[in-house]
Amino acid sequence: MTDALERGRALIEKLNPDLEAVLAGRYDDLLPGFAESLVEWAYGRHYARPGLDLKTRQLCTIAALTALGGQTGPQLKINIEHTLATGANREEVIEAIWQMAVYGGLPAAINGLNAAREVFDELDAAA
Amino acid sequence: MTDALERGRALIEKLNPDLEAVLAGRYDDLLPGFAESLVEWAYGRHYARPGLDLKTRQLCTIAALTALGGQTGPQLKINIEHTLATGANREEVIEAIWQMAVYGGLPAAINGLNAAREVFDELDAAA
Amino acid sequence: MTDALERGRALIEKLNPDLEAVLAGRYDDLLPGFAESLVEWAYGRHYARPGLDLKTRQLCTIAALTALGGQTGPQLKINIEHTLATGANREEVIEAIWQMAVYGGLPAAINGLNAAREVFDELDAAA
Amino acid sequence: MTDALERGRALIEKLNPDLEAVLAGRYDDLLPGFAESLVEWAYGRHYARPGLDLKTRQLCTIAALTALGGQTGPQLKINIEHTLATGANREEVIEAIWQMAVYGGLPAAINGLNAAREVFDELDAAA
Amino acid sequence: MTDALERGRALIEKLNPDLEAVLAGRYDDLLPGFAESLVEWAYGRHYARPGLDLKTRQLCTIAALTALGGQTGPQLKINIEHTLATGANREEVIEAIWQMAVYGGLPAAINGLNAAREVFDELDAAA
Amino acid sequence: MTDALERGRALIEKLNPDLEAVLAGRYDDLLPGFAESLVEWAYGRHYARPGLDLKTRQLCTIAALTALGGQTGPQLKINIEHTLATGANREEVIEAIWQMAVYGGLPAAINGLNAAREVFDELDAAA
Repeated sequence: MTDALERGRALIEKLNPDLEAVLAGRYDDLLPGFAESLVEWAYGRHYARPGLDLKTRQLCTIAALTALGGQTGPQLKINIEHTLATGANREEVIEAIWQMAVYGGLPAAINGLNAAREVFDELDAAA
Repeated sequence: MTDALERGRALIEKLNPDLEAVLAGRYDDLLPGFAESLVEWAYGRHYARPGLDLKTRQLCTIAALTALGGQTGPQLKINIEHTLATGANREEVIEAIWQMAVYGGLPAAINGLNAAREVFDELDAAA
Repeated sequence: MTDALERGRALIEKLNPDLEAVLAGRYDDLLPGFAESLVEWAYGRHYARPGLDLKTRQLCTIAALTALGGQTGPQLKINIEHTLATGANREEVIEAIWQMAVYGGLPAAINGLNAAREVFDELDAAA
Repeated sequence: MTDALERGRALIEKLNPDLEAVLAGRYDDLLPGFAESLVEWAYGRHYARPGLDLKTRQLCTIAALTALGGQTGPQLKINIEHTLATGANREEVIEAIWQMAVYGGLPAAINGLNAAREVFDELDAAA
Repeated sequence: MTDALERGRALIEKLNPDLEAVLAGRYDDLLPGFAESLVEWAYGRHYARPGLDLKTRQLCTIAALTALGGQTGPQLKINIEHTLATGANREEVIEAIWQMAVYGGLPAAINGLNAAREVFDELDAAA
Repeated sequence: MTDALERGRALIEKLNPDLEAVLAGRYDDLLPGFAESLVEWAYGRHYARPGLDLKTRQLCTIAALTALGGQTGPQLKINIEHTLATGANREEVIEAIWQMAVYGGLPAAINGLNAAREVFDELDAAA
């Protein structure tokens, strides 16, 4: 196991312990090595880096996925959950999304708000 | 003067006191009301909101402008300066940019690193 | 109430009188001030400006939302309704969409045509 | 009939013989000439050109639609079918999609994998 | 010569008579048939269609190229010239650009204003 | 050294032997580990995979970078060089680019042709 993969696995253990298994179950038959490669790259080579705290990293991701819009709906929802798992509150998530109206336009921001609403409703229903 | 405009002006006073005058000098002949409208919307209606601290807001902007890529080069450079003005250090800026390789792809992240390098070099040359 | 907000409200009174209330009902709990801010910015600071007639403004919006694609489906449908409300006919809407095949590619244009079809069918069903 | 239209029709005869009729049935009432224009431009003026073999052209399309993401889901699925019709195997399709994680980011690549999965499942169900 | 090509050529005769020759000189050695294909598709199959007047078509193009940002700078400048050639005035061009702040974000709109400024300055210098 | 990193290094040895050193010299002071991480991810985890030949992978990259446009100019030029290094000829590169007019629109395709022209001219000047 590489260092980056190890660091990635240690990090998702805190954020979303089932993530690698879920991804492997969903994609590894189609693309051998997918889950491991994603954990190594996204979490081991990025989120686990020093120099910026994890909560801020997650809020940056929320902002970027909102601004990119369109193709990132499912990923935005997963990352809103991860962001709450780092200790951010709902208001911080909403503010990071709404600020993107300035940079990505109103449709992107509104779609981001809709995604957050869905996540919050699902969490409330599960509570 | 509206409340949102007033809040926006108070905020840029801290980040970049000449911003409204610079924008007015550059665009208001072409588009009357441009600078005021931008300050009201971007700073008064977004950055000045409660619920998320200004430094994190700026790092979110760095991330989103990096991920959007292409059309946002000049704005990324200005916002890197604003982000440093909120107390973020260079490493935090670089980390927010590089994380976008995961979401916007390598070209976007590399172009963001190039923009940061230019800002840092300009600041060092001016120091 | 600011001037821009007042101008925005006067304009949506003609296009879609319930818009601010609908938006407030949908988002203001999540994001206080959302509906007012949107009306002030989009309608008061843009659509209500002199220098370009409202129908052409709306057709420009149709074109841009089509070209941007992906993240703008719901907004495209609302703006097709607003465009018809300014006196544009269906053929003008379709032509503005199809022209975007040149600039945004065929998938964007075809998705735009699908959105228009849905709006027209809903209007016909309601007639 | 123009040369480009003729070349386009000859080519789709091999890839997807019903394509022009399906497109005409779906869009020509809304936009007279749509299907003919699409066949002439996309197939006659691009896919039918010499200089690059059809299978590679189709894999290039898969890659680009994956990277563009968001607005291209339905077109990606149709083009995965066309790509298999040129003799590409499923593994080649999956590899062309996954490579886009480097250039368009992970969300784009994952959405592309999901689209391929849907096409493969539909083909298997129809087999 | 096809009908669409003929219609396209008749239209650019009014907007920019040298366009096909300029494009052929620039790209036909690299890509035989480029200029003819572009005139047939963009002008013959889109701009020359009935159902929407040419000036509005051009303003729609300005809006979309602004919103798409990044990759469309040179094309935006050419189309601003074409739009003025249809009888639009500078204010209409500026308004179509600025409205895109709502849909594509501030960076896109500001880059569009910069492009318009360059075109206007070049026209004034040539006057 | 991880397996993926080793595979990536073996592959760039053929395509562009100086790549890791050039990237390290340019970015590793700003972002420790950058060059190694890029080689591991892009080349070890993607290009070096079985299932699709390297030349087709590179043509897919050309297509996607063209369609993404804007933010990918420098990367497109480097990848055109890599694609020629896999044995593709110039015509194949041009065709992969021009086909993107269908999916990403004319501006994206034209900008791609311009990038190819620059690469070819540089190669001819160096010959």
